[in-house]
Amino acid sequence: MTRWALLLEYDGAGFAGWQRQPGQPTVQAVLEAAAARLSGGAPVASVAAGRTDAGVHAQGQVAHLDLARAIGAERLADALNFHMRPHRVAVLRAAPVAEEWSARFSAVGRSYRYTMLERRAQPALAEGRVWHQAHPLDAAAMGRAARALLGRHDFSSFRAASCQASGPLRTLDRLDVVRQGERVEFVVEARSFLHHQVRNMVGTLRLVGTGAWGEDAVARVLAARDRAAAGPTAPACGLCLVGVRYGEAVFGKEESLGSAQTRQGGSPPWTGFT
Amino acid sequence: MTRWALLLEYDGAGFAGWQRQPGQPTVQAVLEAAAARLSGGAPVASVAAGRTDAGVHAQGQVAHLDLARAIGAERLADALNFHMRPHRVAVLRAAPVAEEWSARFSAVGRSYRYTMLERRAQPALAEGRVWHQAHPLDAAAMGRAARALLGRHDFSSFRAASCQASGPLRTLDRLDVVRQGERVEFVVEARSFLHHQVRNMVGTLRLVGTGAWGEDAVARVLAARDRAAAGPTAPACGLCLVGVRYGEAVFGKEESLGSAQTRQGGSPPWTGFT
Repeated sequence: MTRWALLLEYDGAGFAGWQRQPGQPTVQAVLEAAAARLSGGAPVASVAAGRTDAGVHAQGQVAHLDLARAIGAERLADALNFHMRPHRVAVLRAAPVAEEWSARFSAVGRSYRYTMLERRAQPALAEGRVWHQAHPLDAAAMGRAARALLGRHDFSSFRAASCQASGPLRTLDRLDVVRQGERVEFVVEARSFLHHQVRNMVGTLRLVGTGAWGEDAVARVLAARDRAAAGPTAPACGLCLVGVRYGEAVFGKEESLGSAQTRQGGSPPWTGFT
Repeated sequence: MTRWALLLEYDGAGFAGWQRQPGQPTVQAVLEAAAARLSGGAPVASVAAGRTDAGVHAQGQVAHLDLARAIGAERLADALNFHMRPHRVAVLRAAPVAEEWSARFSAVGRSYRYTMLERRAQPALAEGRVWHQAHPLDAAAMGRAARALLGRHDFSSFRAASCQASGPLRTLDRLDVVRQGERVEFVVEARSFLHHQVRNMVGTLRLVGTGAWGEDAVARVLAARDRAAAGPTAPACGLCLVGVRYGEAVFGKEESLGSAQTRQGGSPPWTGFT
């Protein structure tokens, strides 16, 4: 048996999320069906770093699975890609890892990007990839308000009722709000997130961006530890899992992949592509 | 009657191109149907700067049409966008222009971008927006070879049999090949193009990029004035009409739109967004 780490890209629009669900097209089901073709039909189980919801995209998801068959990394990626067509998911890299390594539990950081398109006209080219904002947003105000969320907090106010995590404490390492022309991007990093945490933070910050709420509202929402205190959940289509960080480089060539995130001195690189 | 210039964005995947064709979904048909709703049902004719083919995208197409109804520019754009839903086309700006102004004949420059994705795995997120290249390309060699095409030439070798232009002479102002990570982008500018000219130039340069042809082949192809001498036509999905240039700014705020192209000293700006 060899345990393989896989770097995955997918368009969330065609999937009911990462996680296998009976009768639904999911990324996990498509990947495992392709892997079963390489194991003589025996079922193959996979584990992902981030169990993305329906509609959420990924450019740097990481998963692992075990295969008995001897195969090279590049041939494995090619074979999985062949069997996964025409689903909009691709294995960008495969790498053998230690048998105790886990895409989920070995991860020390997850990076997401949430994208809004701020303009009067609806998106045509970016439809399904952005949250359209027909009215102006104050990105600088959202960026200032976001600072209240940095660090270790009880994020109950931003936690979905369906969240299965054992507790509401998380450490938010980064939440930058960057305007690029009509686009407003939220770059968010943490070791791990609660269910819907990113989308609930974005939905709350948007109320600051529109002027409906003051910048200080975010600290009050956080302190309330009550989901009802926060803003609505931002739509899934604007969210993308950019990359995952491990204690050491998994795919060997992360440095050359042009990560979206600035590498911090000495810390291991993100897996994701830009 | 007021003549209106419209700045348009569309996803080419859902359309049989710009031009109206019986029984086919086209951008022109969708726009004109929406405009007819604003003219009491009377038919409205439109003219575009670039009659893009099926599958070709636009982020800065310009069209014009005439409306009797008195309406403000922003309300016109909103109303057209309302009636064009759910088609993936959007009016980004509307501006009144002189009655003799033509989106097509007043244009003094068209800018296209052709995008390749060079990596082993098929595109998942960029599917339908790029020409996938599973094998490495030498972008620098393509860029050097492209120089043979700059300037005024008989472009018969790159002209589709269906081309309705009166002659094969065109002046190519720019053909840059830019690598951005896995993406290889061709930035192409001219006053006007022959039918399929950009896609035929890209299909030919690709043969230089793969090493199948030497860099000097492009000059020989051009000199042959024979379509059979050139490479195959690159697929439509990689092509995007980025912007159009007129003798003066049409939409007033082009400068703030963040044009993809560098504005050259004194020349009017491109209409397109980045």
